[in-house]
Amino acid sequence: MHFEKQNRDGKITIIAHANGNRQPLPALWLRERAPTPDQLDGDTHQRLINPHQFDVDLHLTAAEITGDALYLEFSDAYQAAYPSALLASWIEPPARLPEKIQWRADSHINWRFSWPDVQTAAGHFAAVEQFLKHGLIILTDSPRRPGTIRQLAKRFGYIRDTNFGQIFDVRVKTAANDLAYKPIALGPHTDNPYREPTPGIQLLHCLRNDTSGGETTMVDSLACVARLQQLDPEGYQLLATVPVRFAFQDRDDSLEVDRPILATDARGQLLGLHYSPRLDWLPLIDEDRLKAYQRARKTLSALFVDPAYELRFRLNPGDCAMFDNNRILHGRTGYDDGEGRRHLQGCYIDRDGPESLYRRWRRDQQKL
Amino acid sequence: MHFEKQNRDGKITIIAHANGNRQPLPALWLRERAPTPDQLDGDTHQRLINPHQFDVDLHLTAAEITGDALYLEFSDAYQAAYPSALLASWIEPPARLPEKIQWRADSHINWRFSWPDVQTAAGHFAAVEQFLKHGLIILTDSPRRPGTIRQLAKRFGYIRDTNFGQIFDVRVKTAANDLAYKPIALGPHTDNPYREPTPGIQLLHCLRNDTSGGETTMVDSLACVARLQQLDPEGYQLLATVPVRFAFQDRDDSLEVDRPILATDARGQLLGLHYSPRLDWLPLIDEDRLKAYQRARKTLSALFVDPAYELRFRLNPGDCAMFDNNRILHGRTGYDDGEGRRHLQGCYIDRDGPESLYRRWRRDQQKL
Repeated sequence: MHFEKQNRDGKITIIAHANGNRQPLPALWLRERAPTPDQLDGDTHQRLINPHQFDVDLHLTAAEITGDALYLEFSDAYQAAYPSALLASWIEPPARLPEKIQWRADSHINWRFSWPDVQTAAGHFAAVEQFLKHGLIILTDSPRRPGTIRQLAKRFGYIRDTNFGQIFDVRVKTAANDLAYKPIALGPHTDNPYREPTPGIQLLHCLRNDTSGGETTMVDSLACVARLQQLDPEGYQLLATVPVRFAFQDRDDSLEVDRPILATDARGQLLGLHYSPRLDWLPLIDEDRLKAYQRARKTLSALFVDPAYELRFRLNPGDCAMFDNNRILHGRTGYDDGEGRRHLQGCYIDRDGPESLYRRWRRDQQKL
Repeated sequence: MHFEKQNRDGKITIIAHANGNRQPLPALWLRERAPTPDQLDGDTHQRLINPHQFDVDLHLTAAEITGDALYLEFSDAYQAAYPSALLASWIEPPARLPEKIQWRADSHINWRFSWPDVQTAAGHFAAVEQFLKHGLIILTDSPRRPGTIRQLAKRFGYIRDTNFGQIFDVRVKTAANDLAYKPIALGPHTDNPYREPTPGIQLLHCLRNDTSGGETTMVDSLACVARLQQLDPEGYQLLATVPVRFAFQDRDDSLEVDRPILATDARGQLLGLHYSPRLDWLPLIDEDRLKAYQRARKTLSALFVDPAYELRFRLNPGDCAMFDNNRILHGRTGYDDGEGRRHLQGCYIDRDGPESLYRRWRRDQQKL
């Protein structure tokens, strides 16, 4: 990357050139990145000034470019040497997250990471990277002791306490407060869509599975939603904008959130989804719109159970599936609890744990 | 509320009448609310069928209305008696949350709730209701022992563990990893905008404050953002759509999120905000747009420190402020740590805890 100073009618502009791209650097953008210790706290890398208060018309009054620094002077009298490497790291950050890769049932992906390996730095990084790409990994060869899941979870983030407890037992319970605690099949769904915020990442650790059923299913919503968008673009819009009600009731809790199934940001980009056909309730809207909505969610629901998209596998004792709860739908086939026992332990961690680990690792590599 | 059956050209429609409103109930909407035990699990109130798979053209084939029930028959052969009260509770839910009320410095609001009172059911409900309306309450007369905050927090929700720990000490620290741990003034901000999800609710419990400074400031962003929307509607749009980068770095963590300052849903409704001028970084966009953006955030930043909006008070030992971290901006004035000690403990809980308490209370009242 190199920098160029442009002076047009007395207006100074710095332009960065990288890989054939020409990127002007606005004065406000530069001023905000002031690197001197009176502006930026050395311990915390946090700013000591408030750039929201800068003049809208703040501009450069002088600039000089040398090999490894830019000497800049601004209209508010601030002046400093900006290391070129600092600016370059903002323009082309070294620690971007890996791209998310859509997958289907026949994608060749290494899902399985041995827990002893994941305790090494390199094995840990490999697992984190795969998780960020595909939204799912399976940890194998972990201890079969109850409570082990805490240890597995803490390797990737902070455990999120919810109405189900810090860790919860998935097995047949009498007086169940959730269908997960009955031996029935569960279609593809995300957990706790009625919470704000929803759990970001779920872990399910198998302690025992003596039944022939109870197989685990996983589907990548990114692949299915992309297909829906081709098949029914108008329907995609409805799923992203019409809120449904997600609700959960038991003795202690009454949780409700009105939100669209597809979560998008203000620019319409897909952030994730909230999906559980046993917990959602249609709103009272015009019948024609409701029918168009139903057409779209029916298409999506068929994609979610299409064998072309569905990964189906057996969790054996010592296996732990870890998946992005706002991207990957999970489910299970039914089982006969007369035939044998099935006992999983589950917990949630926040979504940004693996992302932070990945960035820190890349950052620390950069410094070596 | 009463119900009417309409039959036009063989198409049967049920219409609900309430308070002069005429609300048609689409067949899909009704079918999804099937009340019989083969459709809805009695223990969990969760659905046993998947309504996403219903025919788009599902319709009523017969309907009969009596005093307290509607006998309905659908084109998929399902038939059942729907209690009128069940439908009414969907159309006019009894347990809506209280409206959020914008406040300013001169609003007459009872902020203070005595902790012994909050341990009674009625005192608890009063505190929860005020919190949901105004996004802020101050618990008073609580024990001054370190760790008390756990007890206070658990009365309202589940404690959220983060990189700062389950509970964190806010006092002067050497080798601080955050500016909060230096005795400097902190302008109005929300916590951890670089996390996904951000902490929903924050509690700050005062153990000791022997300094004359270190006053707490609180501002209602709803009031300020509404004002911004009047002053600069285009700027409001920019703040809701242009993502900035929020970042936090220390030895263990490297957290980053790109998101707009104003969080809106797919329909443009304001959900909350993420605001911390010491942690946010402008994106590289066209300079004219960047200037329009700067104008808007400068206006907003001036509103946030305008005494007309700012509540300023002293937290005394035993006081605990609890506030919605995505609605209320908090800050503090600087203090002289030579003059005396200031020691707060803080923690986060999820946003939906008080909402669930409120709904449960209303629901249980309904049943009495």
